Amino acid sequence: MAEEKIWTAALLVIGDEILSGRTQDRNVAAIATWLNLQGIRLSEVRVVPDVMERIVAAVNALRADYDYLFTTGGIGPTHDDITVDAVAAALGVAVTVHPGARAMLERHYETRGGLTDARLRMARVPEGADLIDNPISGAPGIRFGNIFILAGVPHIAAQMLEGLSGRIEGGRPLLSETLGCWVPESEVAELLEAAEKAHPGTQIGSYPFFRDGRVGANFVIRSPDPARLAACLADLAARLEAAGREVRHGGI
Amino acid sequence: MAEEKIWTAALLVIGDEILSGRTQDRNVAAIATWLNLQGIRLSEVRVVPDVMERIVAAVNALRADYDYLFTTGGIGPTHDDITVDAVAAALGVAVTVHPGARAMLERHYETRGGLTDARLRMARVPEGADLIDNPISGAPGIRFGNIFILAGVPHIAAQMLEGLSGRIEGGRPLLSETLGCWVPESEVAELLEAAEKAHPGTQIGSYPFFRDGRVGANFVIRSPDPARLAACLADLAARLEAAGREVRHGGI
Repeated sequence: MAEEKIWTAALLVIGDEILSGRTQDRNVAAIATWLNLQGIRLSEVRVVPDVMERIVAAVNALRADYDYLFTTGGIGPTHDDITVDAVAAALGVAVTVHPGARAMLERHYETRGGLTDARLRMARVPEGADLIDNPISGAPGIRFGNIFILAGVPHIAAQMLEGLSGRIEGGRPLLSETLGCWVPESEVAELLEAAEKAHPGTQIGSYPFFRDGRVGANFVIRSPDPARLAACLADLAARLEAAGREVRHGGI
Repeated sequence: MAEEKIWTAALLVIGDEILSGRTQDRNVAAIATWLNLQGIRLSEVRVVPDVMERIVAAVNALRADYDYLFTTGGIGPTHDDITVDAVAAALGVAVTVHPGARAMLERHYETRGGLTDARLRMARVPEGADLIDNPISGAPGIRFGNIFILAGVPHIAAQMLEGLSGRIEGGRPLLSETLGCWVPESEVAELLEAAEKAHPGTQIGSYPFFRDGRVGANFVIRSPDPARLAACLADLAARLEAAGREVRHGGI
């Protein structure tokens, strides 16, 4: 079997509000889940402040290292929204007003005081970029090559992803199954490692928890191959049961 | 006035479970807030998978670029817990069992089946490292130079930070004040930029929201200098009120 290409993506979160602790990020988990449905693995996340040279450096590192780069944040109308300028600087292209985005904004603000200079900032794109249709609210994202620029507000970012669903190339999604046990993970560590080694092409992650005064763990088996996943799942369950552990399929 | 040193930190989150979307990270916001109380700015976050060379590369980049590096995740007893090995590899030192950590584990497991090989993994540290006391549950973190290795489970990571509070050098915390307005941020964008420019040493971030069918925004003013912060706050409130906007101190 020829080696299967694994499609990868990085996510660059741009925002002082995440680094200050003021805002709890909600985009990482949502974008990770969406990417997996497209057959793309989220392979790295970086969070950087609203500082031009920091964004430029991260964009250039990540767009080279992964198949795709997604960014969130910094595309509003205010002075701290510098993502478009930073991506354009990273690409070495100018910033221009996109006619399609301008037309959308003109329609939107027709009955809301008109298109001011500040609002027109939201139609700016790196020269040569395309818009990402937003099928729900209309506010578009921006695509340039392998870079996808999304809003920071989670429900708007999610709408922009909706416009991209099924439109960018990926491979097979990473599938997962979960087994839960009321057991300290240290008591089954060797068993987990042996099961993973017995099933090449699978990974087993162990996620301990403490709940209702008891310790337990969920064991997550991951593979892009359904047959390997099923074999590893059955084997791990059998090993745990042979060791006298009660196993809950689907996790605890 | 001599230029004030700004102490910086990076956070490296190690974990497939964050990148797969399975787990919502809770450590970034908590560590950011704690660091600010120590007078240290969280300046970058990276999330990487449980892959040795990816952790090593990130550790070496981040420990050089910032005053401190914190890591979360990957310090349990199972095969997917490779943070200690990766940090040791990045530092070019061996991994050894720390006698203090071993003694703690022996006490803890005395009545719980004894110290197995898997459990002893949790006493391993990069050679020359110190333990970070955990005043609450006893499970220690690890310090080596400017690197601090914390658990991934949020309440345990928080306990380890408790043991570090007031013990690592920082500068002045970044202070912040918030003003809220029921206004589309695009209508006050010029005003925000002018207020920020009029007060060097301050930053104003604009965070729009949509709630109960209305749009609004919170404007967060940040500065390490209380006098500058207060002056910018008063000026921004005055500018917003002069523009006919009702201002809510503390935000909406």
